[in-house]
Amino acid sequence: MTLDTVIAAHERMGDLLVRTPLLESQRLNLMLGHRVTFKMEGFQKTGAFKARGALHHLLCLQEQGALPEHVVAFSSGNHAQGVAWAAQQLGVQATICLPAFASSIKRHATRSYGATVIETATRQEAERRTAALQAEGAVFIHPFDDEAVIAGQGTACLEALQDGAQPDAVFTPLGGGGLTSGTYLALRALKHSSLLFAGEPAQANDAARSCRDGTIYRFADTPDTLADGARTLAVSERTFRYLQHIDGIYEITESELIYWTQWLMHLLKVVVEPTSALAMAAAHRWLSQQNNAKDVLVIVSGSNVARETYEAVFSEDRLMTPPLPYAPPVHEEAQ
Amino acid sequence: MTLDTVIAAHERMGDLLVRTPLLESQRLNLMLGHRVTFKMEGFQKTGAFKARGALHHLLCLQEQGALPEHVVAFSSGNHAQGVAWAAQQLGVQATICLPAFASSIKRHATRSYGATVIETATRQEAERRTAALQAEGAVFIHPFDDEAVIAGQGTACLEALQDGAQPDAVFTPLGGGGLTSGTYLALRALKHSSLLFAGEPAQANDAARSCRDGTIYRFADTPDTLADGARTLAVSERTFRYLQHIDGIYEITESELIYWTQWLMHLLKVVVEPTSALAMAAAHRWLSQQNNAKDVLVIVSGSNVARETYEAVFSEDRLMTPPLPYAPPVHEEAQ
Repeated sequence: MTLDTVIAAHERMGDLLVRTPLLESQRLNLMLGHRVTFKMEGFQKTGAFKARGALHHLLCLQEQGALPEHVVAFSSGNHAQGVAWAAQQLGVQATICLPAFASSIKRHATRSYGATVIETATRQEAERRTAALQAEGAVFIHPFDDEAVIAGQGTACLEALQDGAQPDAVFTPLGGGGLTSGTYLALRALKHSSLLFAGEPAQANDAARSCRDGTIYRFADTPDTLADGARTLAVSERTFRYLQHIDGIYEITESELIYWTQWLMHLLKVVVEPTSALAMAAAHRWLSQQNNAKDVLVIVSGSNVARETYEAVFSEDRLMTPPLPYAPPVHEEAQ
Repeated sequence: MTLDTVIAAHERMGDLLVRTPLLESQRLNLMLGHRVTFKMEGFQKTGAFKARGALHHLLCLQEQGALPEHVVAFSSGNHAQGVAWAAQQLGVQATICLPAFASSIKRHATRSYGATVIETATRQEAERRTAALQAEGAVFIHPFDDEAVIAGQGTACLEALQDGAQPDAVFTPLGGGGLTSGTYLALRALKHSSLLFAGEPAQANDAARSCRDGTIYRFADTPDTLADGARTLAVSERTFRYLQHIDGIYEITESELIYWTQWLMHLLKVVVEPTSALAMAAAHRWLSQQNNAKDVLVIVSGSNVARETYEAVFSEDRLMTPPLPYAPPVHEEAQ
């Protein structure tokens, strides 16, 4: 990819997307002694950054005169809605294979964008159904193993930098690596000197293991974590190449996830997915090791929270757990 | 009060407050076949409109050369934080009597604005402690029985109208009646022809009873409702006079409260107090009786949600309860 790919992606998408706001919490800045700027992708179309990559994939095909009649994707989460929405924008038929464990509200939202939803019992069945549709001519949109998708996801960081964020370090959540890879490209495109870190669930730490070992680690089964956007089995060769260039991956405990989900909703007054709290938890780990005041950008990836997730996040009070009042989460060994 | 009181209040407060945004949900508008504009007071200082009235009270005293050294208030909720914050802005010492049942996070937030917090076992004890401080010279700021506070609360609606909202009807939550009274004055000040309705919990319906009977009804004990901002025992003579001029009060069930709290958080991606859902539930009741498309303004009063409230709101899924998918809540007899 050329360095200006993310810039071109942003121009290509024009006004179809929301230019999501940057938010700050004075109280959080006081608590931490640093400045944290949040890029609020929950206000993006479909409630998550995933709309960017899916739309960009289709716009690239359209530019090449290859806009398909039918697209297919499988996803338990925000990618499903992103593809359904993007397809609707361009008048393309979409079929989404959703595993049965996906929340009913995500299934419903995907349908509300005009997509056909196929419920599958297992991931394997979803893959089979997807392959069958591809054989019939549908174009498959991968959630992260795709340069156009990666460039699209990078436009979130690009906008933040264009809108005045001046980070010493940028933090993203990490599942398949699409957002992190795109963010890497955005920083490079603007020749920005910021560091780049990601937060990954300790219980779904395939990317951190892969980077440590120099070879892709793959979970046999979907890992269990509240960060439902980071339950990928493995990164791809493509995203792994980008991830090997970033400055570090923090492995975030479920306890930190809950802590920061509660705190971000409390401070920002915005619904925040636990997946997004990965980025804040990583930022907090990094900031707590700095000797002088830093400026960081945290990409809040989405705001689609299922009822069960609210219940899990708010089953105990983490705002006031000792030591009071503004304690950092328990630190583990940073990588 | 003269008709331009709310306008004067708004000018008096200048830039000390946030000009909170108006939001819309395209999906909700499609669901309802009407246009709903939300005034997002959760993004106000302290996370609720209460900062307006408290600040305005102090600014009026300051203008009269009577800014006190010490103010006192009692409140289990957002008024406590509003007074603490406003006092801090003007360099005034604040003491807040908080009942022991107030959530720990509200207690903490009140302290974080520099106020002294006195925890009391009962409302009666809070009243006694408050009276004792008044005897020592502290100025008491009432949460709603106060013209300056009422005018301050009215500035939320004023801003919405100045910012382009063109409602056929405005909806507020109703506890002691300060916000509703101020909103009434704002509409009058701008000679706006909009109707004005309020939503009150059916389980805390003292104002609706009072308006029906023509005399103030008073609960003996704090009524039990998830809408913690509407747990007042009774309105005051002052707010009752305003409430008798509005176009109606809808008595909202706890089930409707939960339904609309879930839906507003889902659609707007913003944290919404159950108290604010009172206004949306009332709007929905009114809209469902209209024969043509209407434009309404819903004042979302605040975004301070305690952990226990999240747990209660999300203990069951109300987004997908039958009849699917976008069912209105069960209707009761509208007044």
